[in-house]
Amino acid sequence: MFAKLSRPVPSINFRTVTCFRKPRQLNKYYNIIARANCSASSSFLCDKNVIFVAGLGDIGLDTSKELLKRDLKNLVILDRVDKPELVCELKELNPKVKVTFMPYDVTVPLAESKKLLKKIFDKLKCVDILINGAGILDDHKIEATIAVNYTGLVNTTTAIMDFWDIRKGGPGGILCNIGSVTGFNAITQVPVYSGSKAAVVNFTRSLAKLAHITGVTAYTVNPGITRTSLVAKFNSWLDVEPDVAELLLEHPTQSTKECAASFVKAIEKNKNGGLWFLDQGTLENITWKKYWDPCI
Amino acid sequence: MFAKLSRPVPSINFRTVTCFRKPRQLNKYYNIIARANCSASSSFLCDKNVIFVAGLGDIGLDTSKELLKRDLKNLVILDRVDKPELVCELKELNPKVKVTFMPYDVTVPLAESKKLLKKIFDKLKCVDILINGAGILDDHKIEATIAVNYTGLVNTTTAIMDFWDIRKGGPGGILCNIGSVTGFNAITQVPVYSGSKAAVVNFTRSLAKLAHITGVTAYTVNPGITRTSLVAKFNSWLDVEPDVAELLLEHPTQSTKECAASFVKAIEKNKNGGLWFLDQGTLENITWKKYWDPCI
Repeated sequence: MFAKLSRPVPSINFRTVTCFRKPRQLNKYYNIIARANCSASSSFLCDKNVIFVAGLGDIGLDTSKELLKRDLKNLVILDRVDKPELVCELKELNPKVKVTFMPYDVTVPLAESKKLLKKIFDKLKCVDILINGAGILDDHKIEATIAVNYTGLVNTTTAIMDFWDIRKGGPGGILCNIGSVTGFNAITQVPVYSGSKAAVVNFTRSLAKLAHITGVTAYTVNPGITRTSLVAKFNSWLDVEPDVAELLLEHPTQSTKECAASFVKAIEKNKNGGLWFLDQGTLENITWKKYWDPCI
Repeated sequence: MFAKLSRPVPSINFRTVTCFRKPRQLNKYYNIIARANCSASSSFLCDKNVIFVAGLGDIGLDTSKELLKRDLKNLVILDRVDKPELVCELKELNPKVKVTFMPYDVTVPLAESKKLLKKIFDKLKCVDILINGAGILDDHKIEATIAVNYTGLVNTTTAIMDFWDIRKGGPGGILCNIGSVTGFNAITQVPVYSGSKAAVVNFTRSLAKLAHITGVTAYTVNPGITRTSLVAKFNSWLDVEPDVAELLLEHPTQSTKECAASFVKAIEKNKNGGLWFLDQGTLENITWKKYWDPCI
């Protein structure tokens, strides 16, 4: 039932191929780099440039820490609010990785997202992985929930396609979107939030199927109930259940550290179309039911 | 596999009970009304007050016509653009039904939606059914797609709860949301649209499960590919497939009339939590897969 958590086999993505411009020599080159800088157990993420939207959030921060156990090249954290002490802490975790923070609110217009990404691409030249993790859980705030959880994620994804899309001469890339188990089956007391996460799951599944056109692979990581400050207290829709947070936490949950460990394992598996269910410290790839087929 | 399209049994909803204020006498009263005004085959919708958001749209217009084969009391059509000739046509279809048009853009703030609904409730006193049908299909327009298809639907729903929620002394009501089969499995070439419809499906399923708290029952009608002007030509996301419309229409589809007939049959079935799949002239109630359970 649960995916084996064995050591991932390094895989080659579109970006890597184009960045080095010498696909036939890639394996040789890759192995040299891997030997020089990386431990065997973290070779997939070794030397990668990763952008992490909301990398200082509850799940985000522990996932950033977990990522920094691997020898990335760059970890660019985009978050709404700068938290210099956390960024300093992250920088000290692994001196081999360059950690950068840049402020970013995912609800800005698409053009603003593109501007910010241009700065990053100008500096790093190539970006391997974009993690879209901005999210809020407050069903009193309808517009904000949808704007952050769905529209913001779609806009950030659309913005990076300017740099990644192989039809534009880009190198492709890997998109890791944070969904939620509520996107599969809702927490009914927060229907607005759950709906926004269903949108993320559905959207990302499409993107995975478009990878042969765009060169961009995509998957979701979908945490189960995780003990974050987000979940400790939140508003239900029209206060249908004021104690929703307490009720949820009466059932088995996972820590942010457990979630983060599964999260990075999912990234290392690098499975296009993966629908990762991260619950109680386990990692499982869900098979979505086929209700109909548009046949195109 | 397919739901039987037999004559629906009249059912009594929360609103009806409260509107008449004499629940024990309801059946008697209901039967008198039914005998006086309604044909036997359309008794569920007989004497009902229905608000139809986007009731002049492609699927909307034919569904309005189908509704008008039943002896509703009022059909209040809310749409972004007034089309007086179509409203006149509808008015002439069934003189027993009072057809009204009021302009409404679902992207207005929640307070505006509430104001408009207050006007309607002040006039009609009670509303039995709200049909949320506003939708656009254009993946070049990310913000608009999400704002209309999901945020607008959530806001209109939230607005009517002021008048329906039994916790506020309201009578309950019936919510009919137009989803789409793309909310089950996407048309991958329009991931933004498909995602927005997945949100509608997930959101509405939650509302159905909250009916014991709010008194408001809910279901979705999810048309398959229907030959509308919407589908005749539309933009794919980042033009991943410029011929998406043509490709879709190469496969079996249904006419708006077929869709409308199934639509009204679904309304007459009045099934809380119904997940109606309307495809090629058929009507089926989908069973959603259970991937996890929040246990609350």
